[in-house]
Amino acid sequence: MLENLEKFTKLKRDIAKINLDPLQRGGILTNEARAALMEWGDGYSVCDFCAGMLDRIKTPPVEEFVHVVLPEFLGTDEVRITHGAREGKFAAMHALSEKGDFVVMDGNAHYTTILAAERAGLKIEYVPSSGAPEYAIRAEGYAEAIERAYEHKGNVTMAVLTYPDGNYGNLANARAVADACHDYGVPLLLNGAYSVGRMPVNARDLGADMIVGSGHKSMAASGPVGVLGASEEYARTIFRLSSTKKNKEVELLGCTVRGAPLLTLMASFPTVVKRISDWPQEVEKARWFAAEMERLGMLQQGDRPHNHDLMFFLAENLYQISMTAKKGRYFLYRDLKERGISGIKPGLTRQFKLSTFGLPREELEMVLRAFQDIIESYA
Amino acid sequence: MLENLEKFTKLKRDIAKINLDPLQRGGILTNEARAALMEWGDGYSVCDFCAGMLDRIKTPPVEEFVHVVLPEFLGTDEVRITHGAREGKFAAMHALSEKGDFVVMDGNAHYTTILAAERAGLKIEYVPSSGAPEYAIRAEGYAEAIERAYEHKGNVTMAVLTYPDGNYGNLANARAVADACHDYGVPLLLNGAYSVGRMPVNARDLGADMIVGSGHKSMAASGPVGVLGASEEYARTIFRLSSTKKNKEVELLGCTVRGAPLLTLMASFPTVVKRISDWPQEVEKARWFAAEMERLGMLQQGDRPHNHDLMFFLAENLYQISMTAKKGRYFLYRDLKERGISGIKPGLTRQFKLSTFGLPREELEMVLRAFQDIIESYA
Repeated sequence: MLENLEKFTKLKRDIAKINLDPLQRGGILTNEARAALMEWGDGYSVCDFCAGMLDRIKTPPVEEFVHVVLPEFLGTDEVRITHGAREGKFAAMHALSEKGDFVVMDGNAHYTTILAAERAGLKIEYVPSSGAPEYAIRAEGYAEAIERAYEHKGNVTMAVLTYPDGNYGNLANARAVADACHDYGVPLLLNGAYSVGRMPVNARDLGADMIVGSGHKSMAASGPVGVLGASEEYARTIFRLSSTKKNKEVELLGCTVRGAPLLTLMASFPTVVKRISDWPQEVEKARWFAAEMERLGMLQQGDRPHNHDLMFFLAENLYQISMTAKKGRYFLYRDLKERGISGIKPGLTRQFKLSTFGLPREELEMVLRAFQDIIESYA
Repeated sequence: MLENLEKFTKLKRDIAKINLDPLQRGGILTNEARAALMEWGDGYSVCDFCAGMLDRIKTPPVEEFVHVVLPEFLGTDEVRITHGAREGKFAAMHALSEKGDFVVMDGNAHYTTILAAERAGLKIEYVPSSGAPEYAIRAEGYAEAIERAYEHKGNVTMAVLTYPDGNYGNLANARAVADACHDYGVPLLLNGAYSVGRMPVNARDLGADMIVGSGHKSMAASGPVGVLGASEEYARTIFRLSSTKKNKEVELLGCTVRGAPLLTLMASFPTVVKRISDWPQEVEKARWFAAEMERLGMLQQGDRPHNHDLMFFLAENLYQISMTAKKGRYFLYRDLKERGISGIKPGLTRQFKLSTFGLPREELEMVLRAFQDIIESYA
């Protein structure tokens, strides 16, 4: 019965030359990471050198990376490797909460934050955004959400701020949010899936108690891999040792990424640190791109001026075209693909997000010309 | 401060030609998996083609792999991709149990089964093995363990059988264990980290309700990746959808392996299916190797005759050598490495495990000659 299995081999990744998908822009491997994939690809590879704790492996220098370099990079006392940002959020919630407790999160939160809370059996109190066109998250909203949870006799064990959020690329005032939460003794976790590895972000400087980052989303690593940092106060619980199995951390089930993705994260790290120092140019490029899109009749939503490469656009003009175009609302996906561009979800026209991260101006000019061409071709 | 980071790049995996470590033998990549790593290495790669559910992606054919091929392969109604066997065990325990419930498991269980239970807040009732030299697990032991949990007024939500266990490579009578558990209405989960991908194993034929496998351990895939299969009755709960996020499975946090490891699992799959049909030869080779080791004065523990490539040896002769050898108990690691052999943990001499899986006879003869040489050199 198990026949015709060859179809699962030799599969090609058929993508356009320019991929605007925000979740792909920060995960493109460096040459060093590609070499690491080849060298460390086999199964469990890293475990050849393990004496019982993944994060204490000295050769390759996992221990220095996890216990010295990453804590400094993230601004936390402790860091561990996870399978990604969502798994880090769940680990923190699961370790620090009991079923029925409350977590407070911004209304722009990624769906995985909501799933992590649901999996941990937590209730959610949202901090609503200001709505269109800015979708801003205010620090006072956190105080109000905590108060609402208290009105329900809830125990608020954690707050989460999506920094930036994955729809609008908004960077809220994290410091103020942290202060608001701390006034109630509630720790703040920053979801840095779109910041850690792209832009400067330091949990300690922002007042955050915990932070998660995503290797595949923003650290030029091969997924699944991420980081979870925490201050000593919370690390003690999140990274607690097993009561029976010496040296094994319960919440991580002993160890997490026991293979090549960890080595790609390490191999890309010098490049990632360097590209973060170019962040002001990335922001400038994003602002220029947004201005050009607006000249073509599309409206950038969220923070203005914008502070991140992830941007959300309203495009009433493209929506109007979709009403009569062949293939209807799929025209934009098709027309962009014909021009070597992908990353806007098939079927979207009236509103969509994209990212300019790491794309040279010449390629972004190609993107702008493509939008202009498409709009004019239906005029 | 973040300086001298180049050390994290260009890291080489310095291993011996012949690696006897059981956890490495089944994870060596096929050429097809290596090609998949290169093609799909970037970040999140697979997500370019996702409309919201990883396991429903049609191009590449993830949906057919997860929903048609793997259920047939594992003998379960439903299958999902996980980060590994331990994450699958935790997902099942977490979904099917409440804190304070009991899980029954064999005394030979892998430490990650214990950690998964601890993370889920479960109490453990063990089925003790028969002890040296066979370390056998009897089906009646499961009935007795369930009875003991009942005496503590416990709610037994699951039983786990390690099939085979990771110390002795013992294959218990899974069918009898399943029957014993079912007499009490307790579902059985098979931990197939060392069987799925190496040998024929079908959950339905064995009466198991759930099964986990490990891509990096036994399916020639790049970690972290695994499989979790379940019968409809339990799949309904384990793979339940979020109450608020359409199409997102809570226990998987939406999706799990969103990158290259999944594509390596798929790319190696035809080879894995083929190698399983060669299992009788693997067993015969393991038995021959064990007999030769015994001729050199070492004693194979566990099932006799042995039914798996993973074997445990007592070596009183090597222990005696360690008492006077230079470097003491590290002599064996060093002397084997000098002869191009690794995989027995540094410092072990008196007892150790190894695997013959996938090694040609000529290389196993080299291993036997190395043991003989070493023993004679200290005579």
